[in-house]
Amino acid sequence: MNRLVYLDNAATTKMSKPAYDAMLPFLGDWFGNPSSVYSIGRGAKKAVENARDRIAGAIGALPEEIFFVSGGTESDNWAIKSVAQMMKSKGRHIITSAIEHPAVLNTLKHLEKEGYDVTYLGVDKYGQIQLSELQGKIHSGTILITIMAANNEIGTVLPISEIGKIAQDNGVLFHTDAVQAVGHIPVNVREMGIDLLSFSGHKLGGAKGVGVLFTKKGLELPPLLHGGGQERGGRSGTENVAGIASVAAALDDKLLQLPSRSVTQMRDRLINGLLAIPGSRLTGDPVNRLPGIASFIFEDIEGEALLLMLDQCGICASSGSACSSGSVKPSHVLLAIGMPYEAAYGSLRLSLSEGNTDDEIGYVIEKLPGIIETLRYMSSDE
Amino acid sequence: MNRLVYLDNAATTKMSKPAYDAMLPFLGDWFGNPSSVYSIGRGAKKAVENARDRIAGAIGALPEEIFFVSGGTESDNWAIKSVAQMMKSKGRHIITSAIEHPAVLNTLKHLEKEGYDVTYLGVDKYGQIQLSELQGKIHSGTILITIMAANNEIGTVLPISEIGKIAQDNGVLFHTDAVQAVGHIPVNVREMGIDLLSFSGHKLGGAKGVGVLFTKKGLELPPLLHGGGQERGGRSGTENVAGIASVAAALDDKLLQLPSRSVTQMRDRLINGLLAIPGSRLTGDPVNRLPGIASFIFEDIEGEALLLMLDQCGICASSGSACSSGSVKPSHVLLAIGMPYEAAYGSLRLSLSEGNTDDEIGYVIEKLPGIIETLRYMSSDE
Repeated sequence: MNRLVYLDNAATTKMSKPAYDAMLPFLGDWFGNPSSVYSIGRGAKKAVENARDRIAGAIGALPEEIFFVSGGTESDNWAIKSVAQMMKSKGRHIITSAIEHPAVLNTLKHLEKEGYDVTYLGVDKYGQIQLSELQGKIHSGTILITIMAANNEIGTVLPISEIGKIAQDNGVLFHTDAVQAVGHIPVNVREMGIDLLSFSGHKLGGAKGVGVLFTKKGLELPPLLHGGGQERGGRSGTENVAGIASVAAALDDKLLQLPSRSVTQMRDRLINGLLAIPGSRLTGDPVNRLPGIASFIFEDIEGEALLLMLDQCGICASSGSACSSGSVKPSHVLLAIGMPYEAAYGSLRLSLSEGNTDDEIGYVIEKLPGIIETLRYMSSDE
Repeated sequence: MNRLVYLDNAATTKMSKPAYDAMLPFLGDWFGNPSSVYSIGRGAKKAVENARDRIAGAIGALPEEIFFVSGGTESDNWAIKSVAQMMKSKGRHIITSAIEHPAVLNTLKHLEKEGYDVTYLGVDKYGQIQLSELQGKIHSGTILITIMAANNEIGTVLPISEIGKIAQDNGVLFHTDAVQAVGHIPVNVREMGIDLLSFSGHKLGGAKGVGVLFTKKGLELPPLLHGGGQERGGRSGTENVAGIASVAAALDDKLLQLPSRSVTQMRDRLINGLLAIPGSRLTGDPVNRLPGIASFIFEDIEGEALLLMLDQCGICASSGSACSSGSVKPSHVLLAIGMPYEAAYGSLRLSLSEGNTDDEIGYVIEKLPGIIETLRYMSSDE
């Protein structure tokens, strides 16, 4: 393989060395089932509980508030569906934003079919909701606010503490999809007034196939998966011990690097470098944004073609959300921030990690203008 | 660590060498998100599709009938809940057996609360249902038969082909929890008339955190997890690529070893050796049983104490079902086959794999009589 510049860390990350090292023993000799009583089973159980303690500590939670699941999607599904089920005698109104991840939006669309009423808050050109509008939409039948901590496509960081305060003041539960936030910006569930929080291991250097749901103590969510009663009856199924160990190690490693100054610097260099291309603009909030996400619209460009040309230069990137398999619809996020339908096709997201280098950033800034020019020339020819 | 004799392969297995080797590249350089367009993403996608092809081939299915999920529990939950939802206009009656795994039984108990009607077929002393009783319970409102292919506690293999025929003749969908069967005995979904089948990777030498649901072509199950639309819209969430690759490799490896003559021989030697202990009996079907499961009742013995003494000799085993975390209730399976409440506490399951040796079997046969004698002596003293 030739040069590879991986700039799609918001889609998935390479496992960090500590995460990989933490995982291997449980793929080898320490393979026991945590539910069993003998030594290698107890060792596996200890690893799971140790991971729970560390993850709880990392987000200001208690160990008993942490549940391991199969990923961010399951975490979002469990939180939202179970709150809906649990609270339906109080009401059936849920408030969200227009720029949520499909794991939240499609779960809510499913609930709408089952008779729930969902308010989708619009966002401004930076992807920010209006807090006064959120406050105004809450009524006596509102049971849940679910708003993401940071957006995966445009990098906007939302005012989670303020949303948490509004939720608390109004006695409404608050769930946040923090898949892009945990390990990338400081997150503290207590200080931020969060009742439920979802995140995923593979977005922060851990293994794929593991996610976390935080639920505030006292909130006993009905299970989404029924069975043998693992995870204190909350989530059945043999624990993915190796994956769980990897996530705790990955998160510890990430937190050592917060605030990610080098990542922020690389991001800003990318933004400044690429905005010099004619017909380009930044998407997302220029100030309140994730350290690792640089996102753009290039006029008269088709995003998929751009990705293929970048791939030929060994640059891995995405357009819209890489999480929607093979989707060619324009991104709902870009439409929500007011991009015209055509422009929304020409999006590019470059997402960084601590593993990227200044040299790689220079390479991208050098290559992209020519690629954009070529693509525009080719399409003007059609 | 001293001598370790692992005889709890029905709880979880050590990863096989081919499975481990198949996994590692995707925890390393081939970490891409299968939904992305660039090389390392396409490589990940190719691995998932290759695994799907091989797993489909192994059970007589088509690749498009295979869905990857997080484990056996999710697979059972998805199959049963989604059939229930999809078919509720036809009826709300489901037939199962009294000896199912908690992933099936507790899912059904959940459905009962939602207004479904579940018939639990009793079993004889060997753990076998009566086919005529199954036929007799089917009525116009019956939408699903869910009966396990083989029991995890007593090793009984159920008459899946005959159940499949009854289901087909009556136009009722048939799901089987085949977690203990796939990779251990021949399973062919077409020949056996199976419409939905669940299994798990870590029971056959693959990684924890991966399972499979087979659904017959044309049967479009509503999703259990909503989101980005992975797995052809059926199961959202970034694919656990490494885990998926491991399961395909593990299953290939297992099938090379079918029929497991050496495992069956070790099992029979264990059974013959341990039935020489006074006050012992075999549980499960003496003929139609899994090659790897030897299961017993020892009179006047407390199973948990037995496990701890075995652990001190380096022997890993289980009592009842190791899948129910820290449960000390007598096993519902042993009660269903007619064991008295007290006797059901004194159960022992030894479950083998190809990795076990004759020497290990000899060691267990040598150690167990003394342990049983000691425990009985201690309890007679109380």
